[in-house]
Amino acid sequence: MEKEKIAQAIDILGELDIDLWLVIDRESGIISDPVMDYVVGCHATWLSFFLFSRSGEKHAIIGNLDVETFRRAGRFDTVSAYKGSPREDLLRLLRRLDPRKIAIDYSPDCAAADGLTHGNYLSLLELLKDTDYPGRLISAEGVIAKLRGRKSAEELRRLRAACKITLDIYGRVGRAAKPGMSEKELAAWITARREKLGLKSAWDVSSCPAVFSGPQEVGAHSAPTGNVLKPGHIFNIDFGVKVDKYCSDLQRTWYILRPGEKQAPPEVQRGFTVLLDSIRLAFAALKPGARGLDIDTIARGHIVSQGYEEYPHALGHQVGRDAHDGGALLAPAWERYGGLPLMPLEKDQVFTIEPRIYIKDYGVATVEEMVVITAAGAEYLSQPQQELYLVKPGRSAR
Amino acid sequence: MEKEKIAQAIDILGELDIDLWLVIDRESGIISDPVMDYVVGCHATWLSFFLFSRSGEKHAIIGNLDVETFRRAGRFDTVSAYKGSPREDLLRLLRRLDPRKIAIDYSPDCAAADGLTHGNYLSLLELLKDTDYPGRLISAEGVIAKLRGRKSAEELRRLRAACKITLDIYGRVGRAAKPGMSEKELAAWITARREKLGLKSAWDVSSCPAVFSGPQEVGAHSAPTGNVLKPGHIFNIDFGVKVDKYCSDLQRTWYILRPGEKQAPPEVQRGFTVLLDSIRLAFAALKPGARGLDIDTIARGHIVSQGYEEYPHALGHQVGRDAHDGGALLAPAWERYGGLPLMPLEKDQVFTIEPRIYIKDYGVATVEEMVVITAAGAEYLSQPQQELYLVKPGRSAR
Repeated sequence: MEKEKIAQAIDILGELDIDLWLVIDRESGIISDPVMDYVVGCHATWLSFFLFSRSGEKHAIIGNLDVETFRRAGRFDTVSAYKGSPREDLLRLLRRLDPRKIAIDYSPDCAAADGLTHGNYLSLLELLKDTDYPGRLISAEGVIAKLRGRKSAEELRRLRAACKITLDIYGRVGRAAKPGMSEKELAAWITARREKLGLKSAWDVSSCPAVFSGPQEVGAHSAPTGNVLKPGHIFNIDFGVKVDKYCSDLQRTWYILRPGEKQAPPEVQRGFTVLLDSIRLAFAALKPGARGLDIDTIARGHIVSQGYEEYPHALGHQVGRDAHDGGALLAPAWERYGGLPLMPLEKDQVFTIEPRIYIKDYGVATVEEMVVITAAGAEYLSQPQQELYLVKPGRSAR
Repeated sequence: MEKEKIAQAIDILGELDIDLWLVIDRESGIISDPVMDYVVGCHATWLSFFLFSRSGEKHAIIGNLDVETFRRAGRFDTVSAYKGSPREDLLRLLRRLDPRKIAIDYSPDCAAADGLTHGNYLSLLELLKDTDYPGRLISAEGVIAKLRGRKSAEELRRLRAACKITLDIYGRVGRAAKPGMSEKELAAWITARREKLGLKSAWDVSSCPAVFSGPQEVGAHSAPTGNVLKPGHIFNIDFGVKVDKYCSDLQRTWYILRPGEKQAPPEVQRGFTVLLDSIRLAFAALKPGARGLDIDTIARGHIVSQGYEEYPHALGHQVGRDAHDGGALLAPAWERYGGLPLMPLEKDQVFTIEPRIYIKDYGVATVEEMVVITAAGAEYLSQPQQELYLVKPGRSAR
């Protein structure tokens, strides 16, 4: 996988007219640039430099303890090992390559492209002192956004597999969930299914799955509580797994019937239909070149036009090795999203679509699908939820 | 554990005359400040700020999606949730606390204290624009070094437990290792023992355990290879486990007897004895207030005085939640170690002592012990290796 991603990175440097991409890492076990897993694939101990040139050259400068590991991995044309300081090796390569633009991994907007620590940045400046290279440094945000965004066939296969397993588990929730169960108990049931499959959760296990039962409103991302599922509640689950390091991130919504009910009350049905329609409208507008801001506006606008409060977050984010994979976002133009909602969408990017609606006195309805942008539009990676799932009131957990 | 470490952090701010410690994180699942596990204990999604004041106040400023998680965790006096920008909440707290010195997590010298990404640093400067707070920013390196370094009784208990399990596994290597086995096969045997205990490896599993068999010299940190253990070889193993998130990091050395040999040849014995003596001499000099540089010089000097080449790395590093836990080092004054070898040692810090000697034509002898600094000197956390372990030649793996 690293060689495939390195080749992709070199193509991207050409597209973006960037001569050199410089990845910097140290003590990868403590804190590590997230792109290390894509284009380096080994842990670094001392301050280390990985140079990828537009012309296709690949060089590593590492501490002498790591030299065998990197040479054996065989991903770099040269592996220079230092004992005292990396300065000489770094300057020698820079002088020879003479890059006009050197991309380094910082980004106020995007965590996935912000893998350079401030201390390592200061070390870089110190090493480049009395040269004119500091004036050539630019952000690698564009390189990383494209690199993580453009999923290869193998990456898409893994993402589809993760979606399928998640939906299989969701398919059994309707029978496992019983009135009287707490959010925590239902979450534990899902965790047990996941562990039986030998899979990791897609994000921090304390809120993966997140289970929220009504009737009150609750923020997203919360851990499940002792709050109990009761007839007349809406409950929703946010969950994902990792398959071969790639994540799913999907939400589904259920309603627990009250005695005598055959279906959810009209106000619940109506809210849920508005939610699904907002997903369909957004999905239909997805295509390469569209802006995430406009896609978000379509879903958000529909929900508000139907008299519901807008969701307090973005419509969707990219998914890959991380559940929040960074780069272009389907998001409003809020300050905290920086320039990400304005980045044009590209073929082979994978996004979630995840609006939410609070239905007063019942709970929060959320559905989250995963889609891939295609040449002509988009395709679902997940089989979409088409109707509100119902839990029968008769069977009680206690 | 977080509350204990927060209380410790507030004491340390007083000792160091620092008014405020500001921890900054976002998308913790992608890249996260290592101190988050010590003093926050929850994942942050949007750009988030955690303020710890010398006077004992603790405040969190987070994105609105995370608010339930942080309020429930109950570690902060106030939890402010924002939707658009954190600026107003941050400036309001800074104006009220009016800190003269604000420590933030960057450090060219120490990865464990370098959890602030450069992009988040730029975002901080943007949020503080037109104020005089940027001029009050200093490095939190000293705070984090003391916080991670000073092990509580509970932390020491976990470290001792991790050492014991590692030594139990080492105790069985002498019978499991057979001439004809490859380094990889022996590593797989150790990994199977670890997995049977349900424990994680202390560092990246590709080189934990590292197994190196002679007769040639090999760098540390390498992954095990197909190189085969043969009579007349020295082999060594570098391995550790995590117990309740705390690491061991220990090395042991074996010699494989040739037919007719009852003990290792004199030149192997001699090298191994010099190695153990260098550890004993260094251990005897450990005490609060000593400098790591001087401890390293004792061991390094002894080895060189006996005619061996000096080891190409530090004598020892701290151990805790990470195998390389950062802060003061037992190291020479090489540029790459920055000021760490000059930091005075403190009571309750845990260090490795790990010299190495190449014994020509046989292989690399390494022993790594773990010790804790006490009021009067130091104590071993690991039962030290006292003699070269021997593997009998008779039993072959094939």
